Amino acid sequence: MITRLSSFFLKTLREDPSDAEVISHKLLLRAGYIRRQAPGVFAWLPLGLRVKGKIEQIIREEMAAAGAHEVHFPTMLPREPYEATGRWEEYGDALFRLKDRHGADYLLAPTHEEAFTLMVKDIVTSYKDLPLQLFQIQDKYRDEARPRAGLLRGREFTMKDAYSFDVSDEGLDASYQSQRDAYERIFARLGLEYVIVSADAGAMGGSRSEEFLLPIEIGEDTFVRSAGGYAANVEAYESPVPAESPIEGQPEAVVFDSPDTPTIETLVTHTNAVLTRADGREWNAADTLKNVVLAVTDLEGTRELVVIGVPGDRDVDMKRVEVAFPNAEVEPATPEDFAKHPLLVKGYIGPGAAGAPVLGAKSATGIRYLVDPRVVNGTSWVTGANEDEKHVAYLVAGRDFVADGVVDVASVRNGDPAPDGSGPIETARGMEIGHVFQLGRKYAEALGLKVLDENGKLVTVTMGSYGIGVTRIMAVLAELNHDERGLVWPRAIAPFDVHVVATGKDPSIFETAESLVATLSGAGADVLFDDRPKVSPGVKFGDAELLGVPRVVVVGRDTAEGFAEVWDRAAGTKEKVALADVPALFGA
Amino acid sequence: MITRLSSFFLKTLREDPSDAEVISHKLLLRAGYIRRQAPGVFAWLPLGLRVKGKIEQIIREEMAAAGAHEVHFPTMLPREPYEATGRWEEYGDALFRLKDRHGADYLLAPTHEEAFTLMVKDIVTSYKDLPLQLFQIQDKYRDEARPRAGLLRGREFTMKDAYSFDVSDEGLDASYQSQRDAYERIFARLGLEYVIVSADAGAMGGSRSEEFLLPIEIGEDTFVRSAGGYAANVEAYESPVPAESPIEGQPEAVVFDSPDTPTIETLVTHTNAVLTRADGREWNAADTLKNVVLAVTDLEGTRELVVIGVPGDRDVDMKRVEVAFPNAEVEPATPEDFAKHPLLVKGYIGPGAAGAPVLGAKSATGIRYLVDPRVVNGTSWVTGANEDEKHVAYLVAGRDFVADGVVDVASVRNGDPAPDGSGPIETARGMEIGHVFQLGRKYAEALGLKVLDENGKLVTVTMGSYGIGVTRIMAVLAELNHDERGLVWPRAIAPFDVHVVATGKDPSIFETAESLVATLSGAGADVLFDDRPKVSPGVKFGDAELLGVPRVVVVGRDTAEGFAEVWDRAAGTKEKVALADVPALFGA
Repeated sequence: MITRLSSFFLKTLREDPSDAEVISHKLLLRAGYIRRQAPGVFAWLPLGLRVKGKIEQIIREEMAAAGAHEVHFPTMLPREPYEATGRWEEYGDALFRLKDRHGADYLLAPTHEEAFTLMVKDIVTSYKDLPLQLFQIQDKYRDEARPRAGLLRGREFTMKDAYSFDVSDEGLDASYQSQRDAYERIFARLGLEYVIVSADAGAMGGSRSEEFLLPIEIGEDTFVRSAGGYAANVEAYESPVPAESPIEGQPEAVVFDSPDTPTIETLVTHTNAVLTRADGREWNAADTLKNVVLAVTDLEGTRELVVIGVPGDRDVDMKRVEVAFPNAEVEPATPEDFAKHPLLVKGYIGPGAAGAPVLGAKSATGIRYLVDPRVVNGTSWVTGANEDEKHVAYLVAGRDFVADGVVDVASVRNGDPAPDGSGPIETARGMEIGHVFQLGRKYAEALGLKVLDENGKLVTVTMGSYGIGVTRIMAVLAELNHDERGLVWPRAIAPFDVHVVATGKDPSIFETAESLVATLSGAGADVLFDDRPKVSPGVKFGDAELLGVPRVVVVGRDTAEGFAEVWDRAAGTKEKVALADVPALFGA
Repeated sequence: MITRLSSFFLKTLREDPSDAEVISHKLLLRAGYIRRQAPGVFAWLPLGLRVKGKIEQIIREEMAAAGAHEVHFPTMLPREPYEATGRWEEYGDALFRLKDRHGADYLLAPTHEEAFTLMVKDIVTSYKDLPLQLFQIQDKYRDEARPRAGLLRGREFTMKDAYSFDVSDEGLDASYQSQRDAYERIFARLGLEYVIVSADAGAMGGSRSEEFLLPIEIGEDTFVRSAGGYAANVEAYESPVPAESPIEGQPEAVVFDSPDTPTIETLVTHTNAVLTRADGREWNAADTLKNVVLAVTDLEGTRELVVIGVPGDRDVDMKRVEVAFPNAEVEPATPEDFAKHPLLVKGYIGPGAAGAPVLGAKSATGIRYLVDPRVVNGTSWVTGANEDEKHVAYLVAGRDFVADGVVDVASVRNGDPAPDGSGPIETARGMEIGHVFQLGRKYAEALGLKVLDENGKLVTVTMGSYGIGVTRIMAVLAELNHDERGLVWPRAIAPFDVHVVATGKDPSIFETAESLVATLSGAGADVLFDDRPKVSPGVKFGDAELLGVPRVVVVGRDTAEGFAEVWDRAAGTKEKVALADVPALFGA
């Protein structure tokens, strides 16, 4: 195929568009791949459509290799199935909702679990029809509060979403593994480095879930990994639980005056000044128990206060809180909340004090008290005494207070131990490029997807859900494959195999270029031919560098001597090559 | 490629689904090509996706041959551009509208004129960049009042929409012709018979417009055609205008009593009884002038009464009225309308009476009076006298009354003359499968799309718009290609090249079939292989007939003797063929 730039629908921009923040957004706009239609909503120009199509083709091939069948669902779906699974509400403002002329409710699907579940319910009746994997490549909608970074976080985006259906948990494991393997092959073919991290399933529900994260500074996710191979989304990191200590022999709790100790740092300094530790060493932040008051609002709108105790050398990580309290909105308690609960003495809150326990299982407040997993029985803490300007030391878990439960929401730090014992972890930024979930039976139960098993008994099907963001992957590839002059696509997804640039005034140059282009195309290469008659070499070279076809052949002033110049953009080389030898470089 | 039915995602239905009215809907559901998701909204199963993809591929190839570039726009678009062209309002209830979380208005695009116009405005600056043709294959939404007939009239449907951009009217003609030619090639490749009819441009605006209609009884459109080659949508038929007659010498108007004449038929009988025609022949329906009162409500909601006079042997065709009054809702006048206008004496309305003209340019009523093109000066009519139980005869146009205008909305009949003189027309039913429009400068003006012409002057671009309904075409192909047992796809769009059915208990049969399938696939055939181990021959044969792969090879009881049975579904033949000769039938 030959595509002539003289009649191609393309305009390149010399300047970075003012509304583009990240390099992929800038380059895809400047090089004429996409155009903005609304916040987070883009149109695809011919160049963009070509690259997107190549990514989709790789995904299709690997889905076929995994045994998945391609189907296609509408964007607009009726409310009822999403109501049945709870997602109509749970998605909140992120769901685009609309009504038809008869007043019936619809949504623009953010993902299609419900629709696939119902389709399989319609078609599959027996365990013999399972296992089954289905997928589609389809445009999804999510009304992001702050769409940003071009294709990296849009409100419309193309996704490959696959779903698996099995009778048994072992079957689900096998289907999950086959999609996971397909993802590894897809990312390998795309040349994308990735880390597979344990992830929280979030709004999807279910049991096992892993994210494919691309380590990249502009990533929105934080993940942790150890040199020994552990990797997890920071939300999924499980803090290690220390062994309990004996309670016998520990010093009795001591209440002490502690004015002007608004921070853990000032509290530690003050405590060291007024109280010598029984074991002689200095008090430090990890000896203190920080009590954070949060307000948790559930889907019905009920607001409940919760106090969370974490070691004073850590903060409460709100992203980890979101995961720990699914289907609820959590925010720090407001002054109004404190005003309603005078027992919560701001700055001096603790799980109990000598003779006056106020939180935990001994509580008189009715407020739930949850603690970090490190707060095991026998640990001794400096914490608030529930009186103004007073703290208490040697407050021992299991002796002086009992929590209502454990919640793992403290911040994670470089050097924390990997839960699998594989050494200290470090945190890094990543971008989610794929996600595999074991949904389990949640959707099948909600929508009644059952099949007859080997004994003729109806059993509920267990499902998996597997997503890859096609348009995000394209943006990520642009982030990773460019130089200061423009895009440099990997060959597997480049819009063309070769970009032939004809420059000069001598008509014979154009004739030579025409002949070369015909030869390359005849041998199966997909050729972009810059045949524009009155455009300067500088502009043509600039466009060639910006567009990012990985190999460029310049037919110009050396043509008379029988030479062309061949650029390898990725290698950064420009070589003089005999015209006769050029076709062989492209397999012709 | 080999696709094994044993693991394919398919369920065929023995019975016609109760909600399916037309044969294409029944068969596509029964054979497992599509499934309903909501009224007029369908999901695509693997078989359906294959056929749809083949239709799209043919369209893509012919668009490329026409020089059109493929792009892709989002389904959800912002309101403002559609507001600028008036379509946000004009589309009425047929437009799906929604708001985002910030309250901004969006729509699900029914077509994309606005978006393409703005895209070209962004990218094109000079006449040198034109002519330009762009297209997309994309899912569209229209909130039909009564979605019906499966894919034939859905609320979501896949469309190829193309747009052309030119500087001059001649350029637009050439672009229009190139798309029109591409459509002829597409329909030829799909084996679809079609009639190109002049069409009204409807809500699209613009000048020239033609529809590609498939003559079919279930079609929603009526069109007219003459043996001499004239063809037009019935809305676009132009009634012939007779020559004017001299007014001098015509009899004076005569008012006469006419009780109990509620219909034209009773009026004609009564008139013949009481009044002898001056020329001696009998009065007939064509001598009467029927005056129909319509209420026209414009987009601002203003309701205006209009009286339309048509020869009494014709009705007012409300479909033609819709076209004559664009951007308005028209309905018959209600009793309330008559109550407000006592001058309109129901059953006795006329354009004027001796000494008391009430309608037309002489009107004292303020109500517009429009007439059929046949009501030229000098024509003499029997019509209402605007008094209860009185009609008037010999009321002469141009002498006794003058209309406010002409409107061509009378019903069209078999035998009416073609306006191009090519003989009498006949009416037929058709289904629109393609539409080409000359939009002209309406959209470019509304959205400011201008380019520099050869003299450096800014000129407004002229546009065309060209649509093919991909999903409708698939339904139409199913309507036309089936027998009593199931679908019979044309080879060009069949989901598979060949359907191999293995039947019998002898394992050697399955081994032979496996080997045949491998040979066919190796030679490039796309093979559906019914390898289901425990399914009866009857069920397998039934499924093969229902699914509609045009050629079926049965490997069964004759295998031991070295024979297979080859079915040609379209020809209705079943032949015994030596197994060794089968591959050659499929080019292997």
